[in-house]
Amino acid sequence: MTAKQVVIVGAGFAGMNAAKRLGNVDGIQVTVLDRENHHLFQPLLYQVAMAALSPADIAVPIRSLLAKFRNIRVLKATARNVDTANRKVSCDIGEIPYDYLLLGCGAQHAYFGHEEWEACAPGLKTLPQATEIRRRVLEAFEIAERETHPEERRRQLTFIVIGGGPTGVELAGAIGEMSRYTLARDFRSIDPRQTRVILVEAGPRILTSFDDRLAARAMRDLESLGVQIWTGARVTDVTAEGVVVGSEKIASATVLWAAGVRASDLGRTLNVPVDPAGRVITAPDLTIEGHPEVFVLGDMSSRTGANGKPLPGVALVAMQEGIYAANLIKKEVKGGAAPAQRPPFEYVDLGQMATIGRSRAISEFRGLKLTGVSAWWFWLLVHVYRLSGFRARLTVLVQWAWSYMTFGRGARLIVGKDWRAYPDKPNPGNS
Amino acid sequence: MTAKQVVIVGAGFAGMNAAKRLGNVDGIQVTVLDRENHHLFQPLLYQVAMAALSPADIAVPIRSLLAKFRNIRVLKATARNVDTANRKVSCDIGEIPYDYLLLGCGAQHAYFGHEEWEACAPGLKTLPQATEIRRRVLEAFEIAERETHPEERRRQLTFIVIGGGPTGVELAGAIGEMSRYTLARDFRSIDPRQTRVILVEAGPRILTSFDDRLAARAMRDLESLGVQIWTGARVTDVTAEGVVVGSEKIASATVLWAAGVRASDLGRTLNVPVDPAGRVITAPDLTIEGHPEVFVLGDMSSRTGANGKPLPGVALVAMQEGIYAANLIKKEVKGGAAPAQRPPFEYVDLGQMATIGRSRAISEFRGLKLTGVSAWWFWLLVHVYRLSGFRARLTVLVQWAWSYMTFGRGARLIVGKDWRAYPDKPNPGNS
Repeated sequence: MTAKQVVIVGAGFAGMNAAKRLGNVDGIQVTVLDRENHHLFQPLLYQVAMAALSPADIAVPIRSLLAKFRNIRVLKATARNVDTANRKVSCDIGEIPYDYLLLGCGAQHAYFGHEEWEACAPGLKTLPQATEIRRRVLEAFEIAERETHPEERRRQLTFIVIGGGPTGVELAGAIGEMSRYTLARDFRSIDPRQTRVILVEAGPRILTSFDDRLAARAMRDLESLGVQIWTGARVTDVTAEGVVVGSEKIASATVLWAAGVRASDLGRTLNVPVDPAGRVITAPDLTIEGHPEVFVLGDMSSRTGANGKPLPGVALVAMQEGIYAANLIKKEVKGGAAPAQRPPFEYVDLGQMATIGRSRAISEFRGLKLTGVSAWWFWLLVHVYRLSGFRARLTVLVQWAWSYMTFGRGARLIVGKDWRAYPDKPNPGNS
Repeated sequence: MTAKQVVIVGAGFAGMNAAKRLGNVDGIQVTVLDRENHHLFQPLLYQVAMAALSPADIAVPIRSLLAKFRNIRVLKATARNVDTANRKVSCDIGEIPYDYLLLGCGAQHAYFGHEEWEACAPGLKTLPQATEIRRRVLEAFEIAERETHPEERRRQLTFIVIGGGPTGVELAGAIGEMSRYTLARDFRSIDPRQTRVILVEAGPRILTSFDDRLAARAMRDLESLGVQIWTGARVTDVTAEGVVVGSEKIASATVLWAAGVRASDLGRTLNVPVDPAGRVITAPDLTIEGHPEVFVLGDMSSRTGANGKPLPGVALVAMQEGIYAANLIKKEVKGGAAPAQRPPFEYVDLGQMATIGRSRAISEFRGLKLTGVSAWWFWLLVHVYRLSGFRARLTVLVQWAWSYMTFGRGARLIVGKDWRAYPDKPNPGNS
């Protein structure tokens, strides 16, 4: 019997958890494709954007996470489309045939038809985006320090975060806290505590996925860090000068985008129905119509939970989906179980959390609702525990302990994108 | 009495040590200019390039290092030239007058009139260069893994380091070690141990500043990590395909430059004699002719030690020079001492060291010569001790302890330069 070829596209929470379950299983050969060389612990990405952690603290090479599984090969490659009829994924380095395909390519930020806003309002989904946001936020304080015109100085010290979900709340809270504590002593001409942070949300309240009482508490916590919350405020334009909300124009040098996502374009190449956000509509076993060998997982797929509401785009859902798909495949390869007998995927809801600044959070965990410092500690333990790799856990704990004691932010680096000392001398051999 | 204005350009080892000595001194106002927001611990930069440390581990915000000195302001700005007649530094944000000027802007790599080689052979002086080298080295292994043509695969697995000084030796040793140990288990199609690392040096031997016996030991250590050492080999061309040495053409996808430096161009704007490497020729008190108020420090200045040989371009020299200049200024401002009475600068030679891979080094310290593991531990303690900031020391120790135990390299990230998800949609408000 030749081994079954399982191709996993995307080494996020869904893909990595599926790969680990299929590691060293007889009769299965796994290929993991990702355009990056690292698995990213996305729930902590905002900490990189806010200079509390370094990129390497939350990203681990895919190869080293999977090195011990001799039946898994990892290829750094970009998938372009899927040919479901011939069971092939085509990518930039050629075509890869599969017997089972697992797609978990995630999502990126959506600008609701205004993709040109991105230049002025970066989203937060990748490491380069996180370091770009870090650069912009820190640079704004530097420019304000040397700026003499009061209006421009005020513009530099105005930060707008668009989108009142967990990411927006975390970004706004972190900027508020950074300006009030970490940076307070570092400047001479400006008082960073004069910083304005505005959280703009189109809906009637922030953190809609949380219960009312928790969201209200989060609002109070944000306001105590100086964050202004504008609900029912729809952004109509974003430019280099600032943001237009309805008829109001707010001058701001730093605008961050945390509103809405769009699933990876790979899903559209399957030629099956997708929802308005581009998520593939999947069967109860997470596969697509007529192709029980093609699973669509994580933020790429559109699913409904037991309560009739769509499943949230969080790591826990993706992890459980990856494990579910891998277990089905293992069973079928090992012997006998037919796709028709598959039980439907059921999400075990372990809860959700959002953190506000250095020592406040809100969390819901199996009915247990926490706020304030206890929620923050709970959040810290859960995240550090879930970080892949012992080393990452250790250094993240050291950084946090240090930040907690000193209000410092260790990774306050503004790093330019251009590495060359002689940029106007291109090498002819390179062209 | 109005306070004397001391302007320090460059927050390297010379500038930071001078600034700290002048901190909170009555009658002195200090302005520190740097185009970056961070002080960089350059001796460990190769560890970032070799994926063992993160940028933030060796870089600390200048502002936070100097926050406690109320008479120091820090400006992120680029100095363009010095008007010594009118005692002004002009920079991108305007002109800054001074009573004393300290220039410590360091050096960059020199390509001996072939600056166009830089695109194919990056040097190692800044953080963006370090992450670019890291990206190139790691990417070469990724490409080799998916490459099917044996000749191209061999080219991807050939690394050439040009320049046999401490930086070249450290880079070559680290690549050799990474391929033999860290990456050995991670790949399926290639055997990273087949990697060729070639250290090319134009002179008759490597590490010319070290004693013969130590350099010979370093050579043996490098060879045990699989590094080939080509001495007396002059590079005549560098292209995207590889390197030409004399009449030989070596195909290599990754070439690194560690040969020769050129002092910051700011020195030339002083209109005083400079040496062939652009270093300002200074008086015994490190000032320039006719201007006892202008000090030129560190890698920007050309000085001769007690033994008649030029002082090396290392951190210890720059630190001592910064302290020397600050002490003179303090004395003269506080009362009375005239520039004519200045004692000449004398370098206290504490020795030098170079490290080869994970646990070998050579060091000379006040006549004590060490090799092997003891030199490595000595090197580690000296460097960790000298790292600015307690937090940096702590996390570097954690990373090293971890790397030492596991042969891992925690920061093995390939991070793209482009942060945008929608790159072809420029925002009109941004142009």
